[in-house]
Amino acid sequence: MIKKILKFGGTSVGTVERILHVANIIQKEYSAGNQIIAVVSAMSGKTNELINLSKDICKEFNKRELDVLLSSGEQVTSALLAGALSKLKINAKSWMNWQIPILTEGEHSNARIINMNVKKINDFLNDKGVAIIPGFQGISKTGDITTIGRGGSDATAVAVAKLFDADACEIYTDVDGVFSTDPNKIPVAKKIEKISYDEMLELSSLGAKVMQPSAVQTAMMYDIPLEVRSTFTDRQGTKIFDQETIDYTKSVTGVAYSKDDAKITIMGVKDKPGVAANIFEPLSKAQINVDMVIQNVSSDQKTTDITFTIKRDEVSKTIVILKNNKDINYKDIVHNDKVAKISIVGAGMVSTPGITYRMFRALSDEKINILAISTSEIKLSVIIEEDNTLNAIKKLHTIFDLD
Amino acid sequence: MIKKILKFGGTSVGTVERILHVANIIQKEYSAGNQIIAVVSAMSGKTNELINLSKDICKEFNKRELDVLLSSGEQVTSALLAGALSKLKINAKSWMNWQIPILTEGEHSNARIINMNVKKINDFLNDKGVAIIPGFQGISKTGDITTIGRGGSDATAVAVAKLFDADACEIYTDVDGVFSTDPNKIPVAKKIEKISYDEMLELSSLGAKVMQPSAVQTAMMYDIPLEVRSTFTDRQGTKIFDQETIDYTKSVTGVAYSKDDAKITIMGVKDKPGVAANIFEPLSKAQINVDMVIQNVSSDQKTTDITFTIKRDEVSKTIVILKNNKDINYKDIVHNDKVAKISIVGAGMVSTPGITYRMFRALSDEKINILAISTSEIKLSVIIEEDNTLNAIKKLHTIFDLD
Repeated sequence: MIKKILKFGGTSVGTVERILHVANIIQKEYSAGNQIIAVVSAMSGKTNELINLSKDICKEFNKRELDVLLSSGEQVTSALLAGALSKLKINAKSWMNWQIPILTEGEHSNARIINMNVKKINDFLNDKGVAIIPGFQGISKTGDITTIGRGGSDATAVAVAKLFDADACEIYTDVDGVFSTDPNKIPVAKKIEKISYDEMLELSSLGAKVMQPSAVQTAMMYDIPLEVRSTFTDRQGTKIFDQETIDYTKSVTGVAYSKDDAKITIMGVKDKPGVAANIFEPLSKAQINVDMVIQNVSSDQKTTDITFTIKRDEVSKTIVILKNNKDINYKDIVHNDKVAKISIVGAGMVSTPGITYRMFRALSDEKINILAISTSEIKLSVIIEEDNTLNAIKKLHTIFDLD
Repeated sequence: MIKKILKFGGTSVGTVERILHVANIIQKEYSAGNQIIAVVSAMSGKTNELINLSKDICKEFNKRELDVLLSSGEQVTSALLAGALSKLKINAKSWMNWQIPILTEGEHSNARIINMNVKKINDFLNDKGVAIIPGFQGISKTGDITTIGRGGSDATAVAVAKLFDADACEIYTDVDGVFSTDPNKIPVAKKIEKISYDEMLELSSLGAKVMQPSAVQTAMMYDIPLEVRSTFTDRQGTKIFDQETIDYTKSVTGVAYSKDDAKITIMGVKDKPGVAANIFEPLSKAQINVDMVIQNVSSDQKTTDITFTIKRDEVSKTIVILKNNKDINYKDIVHNDKVAKISIVGAGMVSTPGITYRMFRALSDEKINILAISTSEIKLSVIIEEDNTLNAIKKLHTIFDLD
């Protein structure tokens, strides 16, 4: 008997009709003889609606209570889906975070799942039951409700797959799978049939919204095979495996981009040990997420320019912190909040020479100026002016044979 | 130090602005040195919205899952109110049904609160905390979520008052208190300052929507003084006490009416022992709530007519059950689904002669035909044609000096 974890995202359960449709998908899998645990998100729009309510009360809403508030969203979906399955004469049951329980650690709104009691649900599955679990939440050791960050239902699904020793973990969403780039922008984008955890991790970190990066990371760590597929079609999705089991014919698997980036350069910083730490420690303490960091070679050997990227809406906050920072000396701070990050990702890149050169040449042919560069073994990212985003993606998609 | 239970109904917490207003009421009580436990309903409209979702899934939605679904409504309000109090620098905390826990028994959607663990919350109150508890729900012995019937937040408030040995239990709602009759229909209706549990129980059972009858009953059983008052004004409300402590100047305290009633008469039933049981047992099994029952004296000493009232939307179901009932013989079944029940209530009625006669005479003066009569020590109810409802209330309100 195969034990499957099926995760349904917010758009997949966004209306009553869609919940009934999801019940049909589960019925099909169940009738095929599989044991099923479904992990569900809140109905699409619901979490934002609740967040807005909390913001109307207070901009800095109490974090413990925010988790109590938000966790109600998945509770509603769980009950509705269990009811829809009951209608189909399937013995389905919703299990709340505290009924399992799903044990988490870490702070409110950013907790991590560390354990679940599997016995009760396993007994229920062996008794031909279908279990529905709300994603995105758990309880702390002190018995408070916690949530595990936006999009955390993916992380719940992977944790459930691991702790229940599942044979498969299928992520049902509103797209057919993982694409070589954003199919909404580039119509020739192709669905990727198989992709490694590393590549998926880079792609999702770099803006492909299909799966939550931390969930991919957990799946990679415990070698849990994933499949991302559409709730609304019968088409096969994208399988996500260990790298070794994938046969690469292409060096570059996909082109990703992220919007809402901004670039800040601190000019004329003293070039001595400890400067970078002095700059970034206060930013980290203020929870500002710094993405790429580039330090140019200084011309006078005494000062240097440090450039880094952050999310656009954190620019003013960041500049205030930099200006109030007594530990650094600099000539000027300049920023550009209309930039985009374009990345090419591929597990085969490391063994294919000339990828870097071909990317830079392609952008140059399009007269696109590169503002910053960052590389890793399986990805290459550049910062460019935002206006050039579409052109850059198109060009890179073509020259790396992804069309 | 005074321990107060404050209960806020759906309209009192219907918007963010109102929740902020409720937080101010609590702050005022808290600053006066009281220990506060607030019991909250779902935001107005929310429970119906969730019920409609469930009905869109399936008309006979799984009862266990319906309770999981509906209980999310009060969870949302609890979190929002706790957040609003935190904003006012009050150490407030929401406590979910399973965190307390609130133990219930009985079937889903109709459970009864039987116990709560008071220690954790009492410690929190002694530590200057304000506790927020979701109304209308609990958990069963097997750890499932249960709800205690529509309007059940009143019952939660009274149970909390009892189990926490509170000094006061205030029911905040959208009206100024209990009125001598419906102030929306009869502008001369007056707010009652003090009323006995019995009278309140009759009034609320008879259609006055101010408080849930079963909650009044519990308060009466444990002698918990209640006050019904408005969330939106500072005016004093209606105090609900033990009968002995109230000084009666009037025999009739109020006039109540209920809509959506229907009357069914089974004509020519054999007049022998067991007939009534044979008629009503199957109705009870089908969860049909029979209100008044009147059996006329039979003219031929062999057969009789039995009349009873039910809610209008259960007429067809009831007639089907009666017609399929092999245990009874009758000549005909007739029904009238356009009737209303008008009741006068007063603890002083029993000691005031002529009340019954004055009521019948008053209705007769208005040419209102009485279709059925039922009496108890402190109330007198008649069934009349629905069209006459307003006339009847007005007339009775006047003749019993309530204007």
